[in-house]
Amino acid sequence: MKIYGDLNSGNCLKVKWVSDYLALPYTWVDIDTMRNESRTPEFFKLNGAGQVPVIELDDGRALAQSNAIIRYLARGSGLIPADSYAAAKMDEWMFWEQYSHEPYIAVCRAQMVYLGKSLGDLDPEKVKRGYAALALMEHQLHKTRFLIGDMFSLADVSLLAYTRAAHEGGFHLDGYGSVRRWIGEGEHALGLT
Amino acid sequence: MKIYGDLNSGNCLKVKWVSDYLALPYTWVDIDTMRNESRTPEFFKLNGAGQVPVIELDDGRALAQSNAIIRYLARGSGLIPADSYAAAKMDEWMFWEQYSHEPYIAVCRAQMVYLGKSLGDLDPEKVKRGYAALALMEHQLHKTRFLIGDMFSLADVSLLAYTRAAHEGGFHLDGYGSVRRWIGEGEHALGLT
Repeated sequence: MKIYGDLNSGNCLKVKWVSDYLALPYTWVDIDTMRNESRTPEFFKLNGAGQVPVIELDDGRALAQSNAIIRYLARGSGLIPADSYAAAKMDEWMFWEQYSHEPYIAVCRAQMVYLGKSLGDLDPEKVKRGYAALALMEHQLHKTRFLIGDMFSLADVSLLAYTRAAHEGGFHLDGYGSVRRWIGEGEHALGLT
Repeated sequence: MKIYGDLNSGNCLKVKWVSDYLALPYTWVDIDTMRNESRTPEFFKLNGAGQVPVIELDDGRALAQSNAIIRYLARGSGLIPADSYAAAKMDEWMFWEQYSHEPYIAVCRAQMVYLGKSLGDLDPEKVKRGYAALALMEHQLHKTRFLIGDMFSLADVSLLAYTRAAHEGGFHLDGYGSVRRWIGEGEHALGLT
């Protein structure tokens, strides 16, 4: 398969990490989103939303949305619990990630790293909601090793992508010891360190 | 099981619709989010994010996030394709719904219906992105009967919740004939009309 992605995007890294972890063969196709390469007529045929990541299977069928892609690639693997309730808790974290984490933590990071904003330029509401997301993770990770318990799952892969880069968006993890411990364990599980 | 929800919330209606469609027995527990009933100490034990909907199974285990809940409730049913790629396309629409549709279409509706804003008070960027979401749906629904093809799936349930109420957020569906056709078919499938 081909993975169309931008290595600066945490959403794209999720797909790379899962493919590497499961030793799935792929060709990486670099898409520079800052140059609007995800909004060309050819790219819109792969994903009408004009966003990366996208995977293209060998038969030409495409799939978008980072969390949908990793859920597809990891089907039947040890990254998804066999128990249906545990898998649903994994899904709970993954939907929460896209609604209550990424729009604050990833967006603040993008504004600082790519748009050159300073900490003081950030929308205070976004900062507040980003810290609320970190607090909810801290609450869980104080109780369990990974987000759904003892098992490293796609919920961890999904949340690691931008949590480990949160400092680039001005977020301080000083008061979030369990989150920091989990980042280290997650990076180790993925072979990133 | 118990469903904790607010009937004014499309996210909660998704859970009700799927339970009714599959004839799953449940007790509905009304939570008035305008009165912060989802942010009490008891409620935070069910869902640390303080949001509805939440389901509580008979053994006391809880599950949050509308799309994770309906994915759990509908497992093994005709609302989720057996084919793994088709199921992944369903997931693609459901993750897209939470990131690129709900934050614009549902939020504009909430601001007009519950906060008393007028059309002119809405954030033009949110309105623009809401119409972009409708355009992507129109593009798909011009080609296929339902979002992932001929089959009525959770992708349709998920997107119906706020698309059928889009007019309450000031969105005009005049130029979106396929979306209007699909709303009618979806409401019929769910027995809402």
